[in-house]
Amino acid sequence: MTKKDLFDQIQKKQSFLCIGLDTDLQKIPSHLLDSSDPIFEFNKQIIDATYDQCVAYKLNIAFYESLGVSGWNSLQKTLEYIPKDIFTIADAKRGDIGNTSKMYAKTFFETYNFDSVTVSPYMGYDSVKPFLEFDGRWAIVLALTSNQGGLDFQFLKDKDNDMLYQKVLKKAQNYGQNIMFVVGATRAEALIEIRKLAPDNFLLVPGVGAQGGSLEMVAEYGMNTHCGLLVNSSRGVIYACSSQDFAKVARQKSLELQTKMSEMLKKASLLK
Amino acid sequence: MTKKDLFDQIQKKQSFLCIGLDTDLQKIPSHLLDSSDPIFEFNKQIIDATYDQCVAYKLNIAFYESLGVSGWNSLQKTLEYIPKDIFTIADAKRGDIGNTSKMYAKTFFETYNFDSVTVSPYMGYDSVKPFLEFDGRWAIVLALTSNQGGLDFQFLKDKDNDMLYQKVLKKAQNYGQNIMFVVGATRAEALIEIRKLAPDNFLLVPGVGAQGGSLEMVAEYGMNTHCGLLVNSSRGVIYACSSQDFAKVARQKSLELQTKMSEMLKKASLLK
Repeated sequence: MTKKDLFDQIQKKQSFLCIGLDTDLQKIPSHLLDSSDPIFEFNKQIIDATYDQCVAYKLNIAFYESLGVSGWNSLQKTLEYIPKDIFTIADAKRGDIGNTSKMYAKTFFETYNFDSVTVSPYMGYDSVKPFLEFDGRWAIVLALTSNQGGLDFQFLKDKDNDMLYQKVLKKAQNYGQNIMFVVGATRAEALIEIRKLAPDNFLLVPGVGAQGGSLEMVAEYGMNTHCGLLVNSSRGVIYACSSQDFAKVARQKSLELQTKMSEMLKKASLLK
Repeated sequence: MTKKDLFDQIQKKQSFLCIGLDTDLQKIPSHLLDSSDPIFEFNKQIIDATYDQCVAYKLNIAFYESLGVSGWNSLQKTLEYIPKDIFTIADAKRGDIGNTSKMYAKTFFETYNFDSVTVSPYMGYDSVKPFLEFDGRWAIVLALTSNQGGLDFQFLKDKDNDMLYQKVLKKAQNYGQNIMFVVGATRAEALIEIRKLAPDNFLLVPGVGAQGGSLEMVAEYGMNTHCGLLVNSSRGVIYACSSQDFAKVARQKSLELQTKMSEMLKKASLLK
């Protein structure tokens, strides 16, 4: 998918919402546990209820991988079920030496058919580049994460007064064209500086909702001329309700977000 | 497995060799491709040929994951085939926010039964801690990696003159007891300083052989009172030969390494 395809979809749906399918057998409504594939059944109903309001789905690979072979089967079925015009993210946070990263890229772009993968920058350019060698696919590099532990190293300041995450933003842009960055919504104020360093890149922004980040601040500081934001909500949408009505409630929650996003896009004169 | 168990095994086998099972359908001898599970068949023969010479096997998860469900099946069978006293490493380089890292820990310690997982430190303590909540299991945190791209961020120097990888060594030690570190053999000279920062931790050292690191330097600078080293060789052992005799040649290659290691342990007065 190209940047233009993604922006077209954002304009069409008036949304920059990404829904995180962190699907957990412990958390899905209990009536689904009797179905032959509860994980897929849950995802299917969530997708049916929300596909017209979001532009991306993010599959948190840990949740599937932890179930072994059956989890990978559920993942495959989910991925095939997602409408083709929606951007898909393997939230896998991979990254290794070149020949190994190449295998991870093959996994997510060939064995499965994701549009993008999240990648850890710790091992540098040769750990990211193999993900950029697939036409129309994207590497989404961790820059500033939303968790508490993000403070441990990402704010480490070097002699030029650059912090680690800023170095990542500067360097990783040069790794190739199809780079996005992860920036946690809990650090929305940092988006002002981030947009100076990475004016054109799409940012995947988790942490709105359950983790406490503000959608308004993210949009105010992070939006660029082609929107440039994919704001993710996982728990706040998919686990809003655990009754038979869970998909209906998920739709309400995503609609609330989409409505706000539509206003924000309008305010920024980004709608046709 | 405890640190003592590992050292006991090192003394018994007079070896601190870890063999990397980076098993790739493109690289294994072609006569194996007719078997029902070529990946497992290759691993089985390598294990049969080397288990008495090494103390650990490292499974590079990318190589299995890229094959989808059949790869995970081969991985499971391989793991079950490895003798129980040998330390097993899931070389997965995972790391995410707390609830996701917990899922990865469950994957490798419960769904599969690895003794350890390699973990990226970029997201800080809450991305590593969930791996430390399983009795007798280990998190092996990336510190200084052997690849060229390792220079991109790991040498970033802060105002206290600490480099990023040194910060990682200092901080991650306090995350819990069962921490090891990855230190690439191509940076063996850094081991002098690393041993000042992390005198007691085991170090997993890849990069000897194909990547050009020196076993002699690693042992000279990195060995501590309980050996404290797991030196990995992957391609140099498992792909030394692609004929019918591949396992026999792998045995010769691992024997060469084990013989050198035995001398080094003797010289350091670490054998009983």
